[in-house]
Amino acid sequence: MLFKVEMDVRIPLDADPVAISEIKVREKEYSQALQKSGKWRHIWRVAGQYANVSIFDVDSNQELHDILMGLPLQPYMEFKVEALCRHPSSIRDDDR
Amino acid sequence: MLFKVEMDVRIPLDADPVAISEIKVREKEYSQALQKSGKWRHIWRVAGQYANVSIFDVDSNQELHDILMGLPLQPYMEFKVEALCRHPSSIRDDDR
Amino acid sequence: MLFKVEMDVRIPLDADPVAISEIKVREKEYSQALQKSGKWRHIWRVAGQYANVSIFDVDSNQELHDILMGLPLQPYMEFKVEALCRHPSSIRDDDR
Amino acid sequence: MLFKVEMDVRIPLDADPVAISEIKVREKEYSQALQKSGKWRHIWRVAGQYANVSIFDVDSNQELHDILMGLPLQPYMEFKVEALCRHPSSIRDDDR
Amino acid sequence: MLFKVEMDVRIPLDADPVAISEIKVREKEYSQALQKSGKWRHIWRVAGQYANVSIFDVDSNQELHDILMGLPLQPYMEFKVEALCRHPSSIRDDDR
Amino acid sequence: MLFKVEMDVRIPLDADPVAISEIKVREKEYSQALQKSGKWRHIWRVAGQYANVSIFDVDSNQELHDILMGLPLQPYMEFKVEALCRHPSSIRDDDR
Amino acid sequence: MLFKVEMDVRIPLDADPVAISEIKVREKEYSQALQKSGKWRHIWRVAGQYANVSIFDVDSNQELHDILMGLPLQPYMEFKVEALCRHPSSIRDDDR
Amino acid sequence: MLFKVEMDVRIPLDADPVAISEIKVREKEYSQALQKSGKWRHIWRVAGQYANVSIFDVDSNQELHDILMGLPLQPYMEFKVEALCRHPSSIRDDDR
Amino acid sequence: MLFKVEMDVRIPLDADPVAISEIKVREKEYSQALQKSGKWRHIWRVAGQYANVSIFDVDSNQELHDILMGLPLQPYMEFKVEALCRHPSSIRDDDR
Amino acid sequence: MLFKVEMDVRIPLDADPVAISEIKVREKEYSQALQKSGKWRHIWRVAGQYANVSIFDVDSNQELHDILMGLPLQPYMEFKVEALCRHPSSIRDDDR
Repeated sequence: MLFKVEMDVRIPLDADPVAISEIKVREKEYSQALQKSGKWRHIWRVAGQYANVSIFDVDSNQELHDILMGLPLQPYMEFKVEALCRHPSSIRDDDR
Repeated sequence: MLFKVEMDVRIPLDADPVAISEIKVREKEYSQALQKSGKWRHIWRVAGQYANVSIFDVDSNQELHDILMGLPLQPYMEFKVEALCRHPSSIRDDDR
Repeated sequence: MLFKVEMDVRIPLDADPVAISEIKVREKEYSQALQKSGKWRHIWRVAGQYANVSIFDVDSNQELHDILMGLPLQPYMEFKVEALCRHPSSIRDDDR
Repeated sequence: MLFKVEMDVRIPLDADPVAISEIKVREKEYSQALQKSGKWRHIWRVAGQYANVSIFDVDSNQELHDILMGLPLQPYMEFKVEALCRHPSSIRDDDR
Repeated sequence: MLFKVEMDVRIPLDADPVAISEIKVREKEYSQALQKSGKWRHIWRVAGQYANVSIFDVDSNQELHDILMGLPLQPYMEFKVEALCRHPSSIRDDDR
Repeated sequence: MLFKVEMDVRIPLDADPVAISEIKVREKEYSQALQKSGKWRHIWRVAGQYANVSIFDVDSNQELHDILMGLPLQPYMEFKVEALCRHPSSIRDDDR
Repeated sequence: MLFKVEMDVRIPLDADPVAISEIKVREKEYSQALQKSGKWRHIWRVAGQYANVSIFDVDSNQELHDILMGLPLQPYMEFKVEALCRHPSSIRDDDR
Repeated sequence: MLFKVEMDVRIPLDADPVAISEIKVREKEYSQALQKSGKWRHIWRVAGQYANVSIFDVDSNQELHDILMGLPLQPYMEFKVEALCRHPSSIRDDDR
Repeated sequence: MLFKVEMDVRIPLDADPVAISEIKVREKEYSQALQKSGKWRHIWRVAGQYANVSIFDVDSNQELHDILMGLPLQPYMEFKVEALCRHPSSIRDDDR
Repeated sequence: MLFKVEMDVRIPLDADPVAISEIKVREKEYSQALQKSGKWRHIWRVAGQYANVSIFDVDSNQELHDILMGLPLQPYMEFKVEALCRHPSSIRDDDR
């Protein structure tokens, strides 16, 4: 079941750069593990923003919530969630 | 070069249903031809909306504009366009 | 899997009252059949609005979409959809 | 008398984690006591948000206000309140 | 139990002036009967707007909804409803 | 001459509670003196908000401004001001 | 007593041009009579808009309301009203 | 050439009151010098706001920008700028 | 003196296509004459919109207003106007 | 390929003025180098704002993103990006 999630990252100007760097390393590992598992289907950078557009494929709303709340950068993030479904014109079997 | 386009469709209540049905047939053909060519990478329906989220892979802003303006349903549509680029955490070679 | 859906109804002032009355009869039957099946868990009127707040329990985003698009009043409605999940403080086993 | 209340929680990044944990324990006890009494009918988590959607059944606007202002997390919360009433299509006797 | 209701009136430019005049006569009678009963406590015109700010004193959300839906001008109105309660600094016994 | 004023109070989380308590005592005295004088006609709490809806009866815009700027809690408040006048349907001689 | 009023004019595309021209003649006469009387202190066109910014000097909110509702173009206008008072830095005796 | 500028002032709660008082003295001198020169035509206080509505008469956009950026309170201000021109109904020769 | 103007075009679905085509021919001629004169410095299409971003170089707010109001498509357009001036980092002598 | 980028700068009131001055020097150098290379076609100041409107000519969304993220003032900036293309009425060969 697919969801589009838009994530904005707002790191305070006075945050400790070492701590933030370490969180970003964990964020990347966390994201890539979920991408490999197929749960996090796509992630794109929005040009000119510290933000991404992502597509998740999860079993339930709960699973989506747990994945998002587990993001190492989550305390600095805002999420916009939109439930997606198959488009009748789509020719891709996996976009459902 | 990737763009996310969100399309909302607003067909007037008093539109001629036969004419609209014919336009929708052409819309589907137009969309599927572009999907097959690789220009229209993804299209998802937004749950509960007559709207879609799409990903385009085009050579230029001009090509994106021409594709959108050529949509048979375009007179009834509103588009929100966002330029995307590769996310440094992405593991997919094609999401750039 | 639970979703909150807020539905606003906007019937044009010049709509045919007989046709609208007939649609409302079908709307009520459609809604009550889904309520009896357990898919449409709750429906409340918003005080002072021709609008409702509803809770749906569906198997997928697709099923939610199909239910909403099937509403007899759908051409006159706007939907706001929000994915819900179990709250850790909830004491009700069915609110998940 | 029913009200939908949407609660957003914004805990400052520099809040003392021990104090916040203690407040959350009291928040849960406070919420569950009101749920058991029937005043707080439903509480759901919004997927991807530190937020909930709740349904209250109270005797008056004043009672609702007192309950919300008494929440241990209230200094960190924003509330959106909407008065509900019975929907004429509802088949549940308790949703009024 | 008190509610503030803000009412905006939007009469289409092509509405039949005779029919609208007749509706306004009924609107005034309806409003004044409710004012005399004490249900409609206050009504003020907003300067420069075809709009009013009103205070209602009703027994329930349902009663408020029924009063508003019964307004002769209701098909041309938008309502914003806000639940009020006694302010701890108020010196008026009736403003609760 | 009547004005509706909506006041939102935002006290910073790190404000000194003793100082704030003292300001609130003065706020209540200030408000009640103006209520007794007839300048501050009504004040209601908005359910679920640290906010009020008030009706002022003043001689001029300047008098309204001076009253609001003199509120002990003013540094923590936001005001929305709306000029009111008599509604042609009103039956109360004092609501003008 | 001073008020800033911003007026937007929206004349429907299918309005009768002869009737509109006649209304505009009356609008200009109405406005200039009020300017001569000193009630309508200033009127400026907003560059690029069919809109104006005006300053009124009236005895009461009621008088302002009556002036605005009497505008020949009023059925096609939206008003935003803001109460003004003397600025402590102003050197003009009439800007109060 | 005329411009309407709306200025909102937001002084942080923890600003040094002595420094702010000194800035306000300079602000008043700066404003009054520009008023005397004819560049700053009008300034009004917005009732209930730490804000003003001003009319400037400048030779160019650049001159307007330089005046606003030179305001002693500028670091605490937000500006909304609107280009004005003569209204065809105006009877004042100087409102152009 | 430079202004950025953003223009949105909204042609009603039921407009006469022959009349609109004729207006568009005149629009293009009008725009190109102003471009040649140097008054209309730049015009770009916004990708995915029937809209443009333009830069005007005019002698006064009045001249800008007259140019915009003279556009053949003006009855179907909305304008957003922003006054520009030279940026201190600019290396182009003509961008002032 | 052209993009309009609007940049707002928000430097915290308590930022170190020496550090900020040094960043602004680097910002200017960075901007002027890109202007000389032709990548940053235009930059204008918005009158009354610490903001600019810029036109970029880049090879890809990625290049635009990298340029913006490399701005020395980027931690204090918000960007709004809009993809542009040639306008059919344009007479300038370089505005594409």
